[in-house]
Amino acid sequence: MKLLDCTLRDGGYYTNWDFDSELVDTYIQSFNHLPVDYLEIGYRSNPQPDYLGEYFYCPVYVMDRLKAESKKKLAIILNEKDVRAEDVNSLLAPCKSLIDLIRIAVKPANFERALGLSKVIKKMGFEVSFNLMYMSDWETFPKLFGLMKETEGVVDYLYLVDSYGGVYPEDVRLTIKRVRDKADTKLGFHGHNNLEMALANTLAAIEEGVNIVDSTVTGMGRGAGNLKTELLLTVLNSKGLIEFNYNWLSKVTDPFQQLQNNYEWGTNLPYMVSGANSIPQKKVMGWVTKRFYSFNSIIRALSNQSQGRKDN
Amino acid sequence: MKLLDCTLRDGGYYTNWDFDSELVDTYIQSFNHLPVDYLEIGYRSNPQPDYLGEYFYCPVYVMDRLKAESKKKLAIILNEKDVRAEDVNSLLAPCKSLIDLIRIAVKPANFERALGLSKVIKKMGFEVSFNLMYMSDWETFPKLFGLMKETEGVVDYLYLVDSYGGVYPEDVRLTIKRVRDKADTKLGFHGHNNLEMALANTLAAIEEGVNIVDSTVTGMGRGAGNLKTELLLTVLNSKGLIEFNYNWLSKVTDPFQQLQNNYEWGTNLPYMVSGANSIPQKKVMGWVTKRFYSFNSIIRALSNQSQGRKDN
Repeated sequence: MKLLDCTLRDGGYYTNWDFDSELVDTYIQSFNHLPVDYLEIGYRSNPQPDYLGEYFYCPVYVMDRLKAESKKKLAIILNEKDVRAEDVNSLLAPCKSLIDLIRIAVKPANFERALGLSKVIKKMGFEVSFNLMYMSDWETFPKLFGLMKETEGVVDYLYLVDSYGGVYPEDVRLTIKRVRDKADTKLGFHGHNNLEMALANTLAAIEEGVNIVDSTVTGMGRGAGNLKTELLLTVLNSKGLIEFNYNWLSKVTDPFQQLQNNYEWGTNLPYMVSGANSIPQKKVMGWVTKRFYSFNSIIRALSNQSQGRKDN
Repeated sequence: MKLLDCTLRDGGYYTNWDFDSELVDTYIQSFNHLPVDYLEIGYRSNPQPDYLGEYFYCPVYVMDRLKAESKKKLAIILNEKDVRAEDVNSLLAPCKSLIDLIRIAVKPANFERALGLSKVIKKMGFEVSFNLMYMSDWETFPKLFGLMKETEGVVDYLYLVDSYGGVYPEDVRLTIKRVRDKADTKLGFHGHNNLEMALANTLAAIEEGVNIVDSTVTGMGRGAGNLKTELLLTVLNSKGLIEFNYNWLSKVTDPFQQLQNNYEWGTNLPYMVSGANSIPQKKVMGWVTKRFYSFNSIIRALSNQSQGRKDN
């Protein structure tokens, strides 16, 4: 079973993908001593109209530096909705020999189109994963499970992503079984922490034999954030599954904990309500981080939405 | 199934059992509109040498005020190790008609002695619960399960307390079955959140049919804290088990969230390590809140302890 830390990529939602270079050095150096297999360092993206920081584009000088410092396999992620097959060469040719794994964030509706993208990337020699979003909605896409067979040989890891942060261990187990009925592709799990179920769900996925799971330091990540890397490593260590020196874990956790005091990622009542009622966290994060609305008014808007009423 | 909120009692570990009276009013008024059955307002205690605030003693004027304001059943807790049968009358006679449930925090080693205490309290007409600590160690007390039959008719709720914050849902299920083999007493669950497993463990306990579960607003409570009341209510609501107006939940959560910014309860790497390795949180909380030691040195001391070495 492989572990992937995606702090710089998913945490970038809070820092606009800018990270202090000293922090990144501490991050890379610490993980050199921790039993994590992959580090996802950011996006590769076509130019965007808004300002977005270094780790949203991962220019070659960034990849060069991290490759030189890190002993781990490196990953970047592409947003399938923004990337067509004809963009692949310009985005990924510079990644050759620097990046091992290309992850693709895929919406269930775009699964078939993403298979085409994956084939092109695979041919370039990269490992490929699908981070297939909205696992709790998969059943509502009639063709989705039927298409999964086609990931074999084209996708190295097919991830269940709990986008709303609202699933429970029994949902994870059931969905894994549903996928296994259709395809022999290796599986992954990416959990969100709205309901503080990220660890329980990830442990369920591990028990079901998934091949890779994601986490981020202090859970840093969009909205309520992710499974905390320090929690996962501590628990796997206490179960006798991995060994490491806590000095390194503490060294990388401390500065992100400091950063968390400013940005305040993590769950709270609005994120709990959105998770429990399958409302996208993007929307909630916008409301919460603006600090313009009271939690109370956010909750009211959310609970109206979950009942299909218009916001008030 | 009953819900008990013990914010004022367990949260007192951070405020030394002093709470602003406006905050307590908000707390009581909000819970009047929420589907929680019991509010545990504090300890009743013999005089102690150190300064400890109002809610550590719950003098009659406090109980009078809360009884007048609250529509809920009220509970207080006694520390079994500090209370003998001969203290009961002076501590509890003033509680008659004000307090419904007397909880007793019991160490497994003192279980038999606690049964005597419970009989005296039961005769006074109170409901009684045992908050039986260290559930993960129960198997190491040879006489404990054999004595559980004697709680029938003497103890209204026998709680499994995850004192270290280190158990998993399968442990909860197994221990409930072990107790049920021995006694028909109603059961309760009090979970700690070191490993962010408080919700998963509590949901497992509820599925196993326990009769009462504990939580606190924002998880406020000793060390890493407890299951968050706002999380439990949101999840039970999304499962269609309870109904309430989110305005009241938000109203009581907000001020405790503010307080949390000062006191910083909740889990972190030292609490995770202590939970995963069954080290008492009292010790870790002392180290963490003094802010005198780096997390790093705390972790080193903890991991030495868990290996049976002396602190360094």
